[in-house]
Amino acid sequence: MSHLSKSKTKLIARVRRLKGQLEAIERALEAEEPCGVVLNQVASVRGAMSGLTAELIEDHIRNHVSDPDQDDDPERARAAAELIDVMRIYLK
Amino acid sequence: MSHLSKSKTKLIARVRRLKGQLEAIERALEAEEPCGVVLNQVASVRGAMSGLTAELIEDHIRNHVSDPDQDDDPERARAAAELIDVMRIYLK
Amino acid sequence: MSHLSKSKTKLIARVRRLKGQLEAIERALEAEEPCGVVLNQVASVRGAMSGLTAELIEDHIRNHVSDPDQDDDPERARAAAELIDVMRIYLK
Amino acid sequence: MSHLSKSKTKLIARVRRLKGQLEAIERALEAEEPCGVVLNQVASVRGAMSGLTAELIEDHIRNHVSDPDQDDDPERARAAAELIDVMRIYLK
Repeated sequence: MSHLSKSKTKLIARVRRLKGQLEAIERALEAEEPCGVVLNQVASVRGAMSGLTAELIEDHIRNHVSDPDQDDDPERARAAAELIDVMRIYLK
Repeated sequence: MSHLSKSKTKLIARVRRLKGQLEAIERALEAEEPCGVVLNQVASVRGAMSGLTAELIEDHIRNHVSDPDQDDDPERARAAAELIDVMRIYLK
Repeated sequence: MSHLSKSKTKLIARVRRLKGQLEAIERALEAEEPCGVVLNQVASVRGAMSGLTAELIEDHIRNHVSDPDQDDDPERARAAAELIDVMRIYLK
Repeated sequence: MSHLSKSKTKLIARVRRLKGQLEAIERALEAEEPCGVVLNQVASVRGAMSGLTAELIEDHIRNHVSDPDQDDDPERARAAAELIDVMRIYLK
């Protein structure tokens, strides 16, 4: 994932945060906390997973397929920008 | 989450497995593995999260709202069974 | 879907609106409009579908499983309210 | 959506099928059919919507960003193929 050299640190920080959220769920299950609490924690993790996914896919498009800000081909640049926008909506 | 006393161990095992999967993603990012590899790992975690969510919600319905197998009210029992089926489909 | 007698009109109006949105997508495809336009229309329909689903499931819970505002059993009422909240989050 | 000239007919047929499914939901609501029936119909429409979305995005990638089968740049071709695979998984 060579293109990640730049954003690598940021992505790894995100994955670690997710791990921390899972540990909180584990503790909540251990402590037999109310369902509502656990289900809300799980919903947060799902949201965070979607955010991570969207960022990974955007990085992939920008670094390996077409970077809208740098592509010499203006049509492909526009199409890649549209693709990134659509991905964000669908992975929200 | 008192009803979890029974399934608690199973759920905690699931959360730990998820944590293991996130650690694998962290290592893959550290090692700068190809995007395709990381994106597939993330897809697996999403699937596992959905499975965990579906199980937590089913447990919640069965233990706090209505258990289709034990509810004295046959109409509510049927409606709860339908609800569980629908939840499984939507969270797949 | 007897409980729908009340909200039936509202739900049917929602389904018809969805049909109208699909007709707009059909026209956009016929007119060979830009991908970005069509993909945004599809994203709207998906959002509207999720809204309809959440409403149908909430109606189902309230009318056939437990209505948090009317259930004599306070624990079940609370659990049903939590379930409705969680469903809304997951189907957003 | 010029690239659709080829697949246009197929996509429009898909949208029309979706419209037919919505009409069936409308009839089911009118006839006050059981919730379980309606919720299953809605689940089918959601699945069909996701399929349509995945196809539109794949078409967009192939025709406007990079077609893995025709791109002269082998790295971009591979990255686009990975992207299409990932999209299919996430939109399932």
